[in-house]
Amino acid sequence: MKTPGKVLSAFRRDARFLIATHINPDGDAIGSSVALACALEAIGKKVLVYDRDPVPKIYRFMPGHGKFRTDIRNMLKSDPVLVLLDCNAPDRAGLEGFSFRSSIVIDHHETESDFGDIRWIRKDAAATGLLIHYLIKALGVALTRDMAENLYTAISVDTGTFRYSNTTAGVLTASAELVKAGAEPNVIAESLYETWDYKRFRLFLLSMNTLEKKNGIAITRVTREMFRKTGTKPEDTEQFSNFPRKIDSVKMSAMFRELGGNQWKASLRAKGAVNVAAIAETFGGGGHRNAAGYKTEGDFACVRRALLQAVRKLEGDKKT
Amino acid sequence: MKTPGKVLSAFRRDARFLIATHINPDGDAIGSSVALACALEAIGKKVLVYDRDPVPKIYRFMPGHGKFRTDIRNMLKSDPVLVLLDCNAPDRAGLEGFSFRSSIVIDHHETESDFGDIRWIRKDAAATGLLIHYLIKALGVALTRDMAENLYTAISVDTGTFRYSNTTAGVLTASAELVKAGAEPNVIAESLYETWDYKRFRLFLLSMNTLEKKNGIAITRVTREMFRKTGTKPEDTEQFSNFPRKIDSVKMSAMFRELGGNQWKASLRAKGAVNVAAIAETFGGGGHRNAAGYKTEGDFACVRRALLQAVRKLEGDKKT
Repeated sequence: MKTPGKVLSAFRRDARFLIATHINPDGDAIGSSVALACALEAIGKKVLVYDRDPVPKIYRFMPGHGKFRTDIRNMLKSDPVLVLLDCNAPDRAGLEGFSFRSSIVIDHHETESDFGDIRWIRKDAAATGLLIHYLIKALGVALTRDMAENLYTAISVDTGTFRYSNTTAGVLTASAELVKAGAEPNVIAESLYETWDYKRFRLFLLSMNTLEKKNGIAITRVTREMFRKTGTKPEDTEQFSNFPRKIDSVKMSAMFRELGGNQWKASLRAKGAVNVAAIAETFGGGGHRNAAGYKTEGDFACVRRALLQAVRKLEGDKKT
Repeated sequence: MKTPGKVLSAFRRDARFLIATHINPDGDAIGSSVALACALEAIGKKVLVYDRDPVPKIYRFMPGHGKFRTDIRNMLKSDPVLVLLDCNAPDRAGLEGFSFRSSIVIDHHETESDFGDIRWIRKDAAATGLLIHYLIKALGVALTRDMAENLYTAISVDTGTFRYSNTTAGVLTASAELVKAGAEPNVIAESLYETWDYKRFRLFLLSMNTLEKKNGIAITRVTREMFRKTGTKPEDTEQFSNFPRKIDSVKMSAMFRELGGNQWKASLRAKGAVNVAAIAETFGGGGHRNAAGYKTEGDFACVRRALLQAVRKLEGDKKT
């Protein structure tokens, strides 16, 4: 993937940049932002890094994450060029109402907006971190270990550490270069996947013990009572909804998390056979083909039944 | 890693080969054997593939695994050259008592034997499959999709799909070449990690529900009663002992599987801080630094206490 010339010239031309990424940042958003900030600093640029939300605890092993600031006000004084990463509309980054003299957008999500003076959006790229890797090489900046660790983490998070279908030969070749520059695959994998606290592990078991399998759908739930009992929080359920996919006869996993007052957040995960985005949309939610979600109301028996009906209807529609 | 010239000449010189690998074969043993058989056949050699044990169910997605035969007798008539893969002593392959006119050994385990006329043993290689990849290239054979899928699976199994510390830049570069030749990372990962049957999932939960954490040691057990209740077998516990490593405060996971009559098989897994091979050795078992095992006798309370004492003693020894 070749970095477009206009992207390169924009970074070479200007002196001050504000890198911003989407709210509720994930490993790709954080790693891309920090690695690009380091690379721009290496060629003498002034760089600020912004996210409306703080870096989540599980990503605080990433070197340089302390560069993130959560307050935009002081940042605008120097009149920087906006660099929007891993999203392509200012509202996704909590930047509504601010204006910038110019902007560069680098992203791999489906295009939703035409924002940006210079846009490099490659939805065929597994991660924004992969684009930043190519950009840093094209800028002629030597990869440091910190940059490599950030980019390797970015790519790991968005490819399930090379387990999703976006894992191409190019992804593996780039990752090999990052390992050569100092990224440690086992340390990063352990930081991403083996740092649950014990409370979270107990919540996981409570939730998995509710598993019910019906017509290839695995249904689990996490109740407020479980959070209370284990001293955990909603963000501790991250990755839980993926787990029942391990079962060969499960084509879809649905996890219902109790929000309170008969309200539930449903997280749907599939393996390709069911389009969970279509199911989530029937409940006013959305997402991707294999990962989607929605909010719903009712007692658990009701919301469970409604989901099973929606799947049946969708499968009936497919057949007719 | 360069394929030694003597290895290349041995394969070029002879016409008939018997590829054999270790008993209880894993993905590296199977993938290496099948890929090499395909490559040798591509240059006109006659090849037989042997394992004393049948290919385990979870590896039957690998193309060409049907090449394996479990009966050695008819194989010896053609007087083949023995190719021993992923182990380096004939008894590891159930070949005691047989003799061959010559033998080639390709392996990445610690050397335990001086068997073999031609030996290529690289303990710094992540997988035997990686050595076979280099060998096939050096033989000038074009990688087919079947070879690529076998080698990618071999490397995946021995690196935890790029999560263990043996994941080098070379491993990722080779894997990129295998993807170019047709291996599909997501299909292979799903086949390896997302094909538990429901019985096995229920056994997993029963076992995890026994988890007890003591001084950074996670202790779980699987009883014969659990196997009976879920209709599962000992091989269904594969990977269970790794799971408690997810907990940040766990430095070692110990799973006790009941063999019957107060006998237990202990599987120990660590993250680097504890040397579980040393612990297993105190009970007459063995293994590697981060994965080891032993058999022991006594009621559960006893074997549990004996393990905790052995860890305490080992840590005491380290301090003094």
